[in-house]
Amino acid sequence: MRTIAEPVARLIDEFSRLPGIGPKTASRLTFYLLRVPKEQALALADALRELKERTVFCSICFNIAEASPCPICSDESRDRSIICVVEEPLDVLAIERTREYKGLYHVLHGAISPVEGIGPDELKIHELLERLKAEQVKEVLLATNPNLEGEATAMYLARLITPLGPRVTRLARGLPVGGDLEYADEVTLTRALEGRREM
Amino acid sequence: MRTIAEPVARLIDEFSRLPGIGPKTASRLTFYLLRVPKEQALALADALRELKERTVFCSICFNIAEASPCPICSDESRDRSIICVVEEPLDVLAIERTREYKGLYHVLHGAISPVEGIGPDELKIHELLERLKAEQVKEVLLATNPNLEGEATAMYLARLITPLGPRVTRLARGLPVGGDLEYADEVTLTRALEGRREM
Repeated sequence: MRTIAEPVARLIDEFSRLPGIGPKTASRLTFYLLRVPKEQALALADALRELKERTVFCSICFNIAEASPCPICSDESRDRSIICVVEEPLDVLAIERTREYKGLYHVLHGAISPVEGIGPDELKIHELLERLKAEQVKEVLLATNPNLEGEATAMYLARLITPLGPRVTRLARGLPVGGDLEYADEVTLTRALEGRREM
Repeated sequence: MRTIAEPVARLIDEFSRLPGIGPKTASRLTFYLLRVPKEQALALADALRELKERTVFCSICFNIAEASPCPICSDESRDRSIICVVEEPLDVLAIERTREYKGLYHVLHGAISPVEGIGPDELKIHELLERLKAEQVKEVLLATNPNLEGEATAMYLARLITPLGPRVTRLARGLPVGGDLEYADEVTLTRALEGRREM
């Protein structure tokens, strides 16, 4: 005999598939949602649906946006001579929060990681090089994470980009090594932007 | 200018409303869902919708179920002479997992907590008393949480139920199995001493 209603078991199951959410947390979230007004649960369901149905990747920088090109790429007031290369869309947010950076972005969607089988072809590297060939870019700021994969990716990119002409810079070593860019506080990130250096 | 797509911001926002999920975790979950196949995100959305649309409270025990009465209340093989009173539907699951208990349940949907403004009228206490008056119940096992609110609720219920006739019992307090004596808090150890039994 089943002692748990199927829709309850199913939601616990779906929550458990999310990263960092174990079965206990999944149960807690599910039973919390059973108690809240129907509108809140449906608002979350709708938000999930819209996330997939109303977002696209910007065809220029590959950031997540509602339309392509994204608001940053189509903003004429941004400095088009500098491109900041990041691993994930969340990293764009982190840098935007500093209000220090006025250039464009390029989202790689990952970092080179032989262990995880992620090579340069899995990332938006080819697209970055095409951008650099087509546009007048004076500086490429490599803002990959200050960890092993991020450093390796930055080294790899520096080698490819330098012959194309732009100055290649890296966020300053104000960031805690081994950390994750998106968790950096704004002051640290601002310092890292100010202190960027030639590679 | 908005640097985050509205559907992304909205889902982060909805996730943040869940208990124990801060803005950082909400962001991580959202960007994780951006990367997974559309089907997984929609499966979660559907599970949320069905949780609200395909579950009801059992009209007898107030547990969550797909139909009322719930499978436990309608199971003729269960012992109808004992009712186990718990705070939440999750507690029913916990007790069912032991496979030790064969009686019925009553879910209060909370505990008495003057601090949070939860009095007896907010709980399914009136409904429990009506059940006890209408049915032949020999024992009421009070399985509210072993904390301040749970104890207060158990005391309150014991005073109301005793005059109606059933034996009123409470889950034993003592050392958790697999635990370490030296890590037990004083209150638990005191209860374990008080409740010591012949071997």
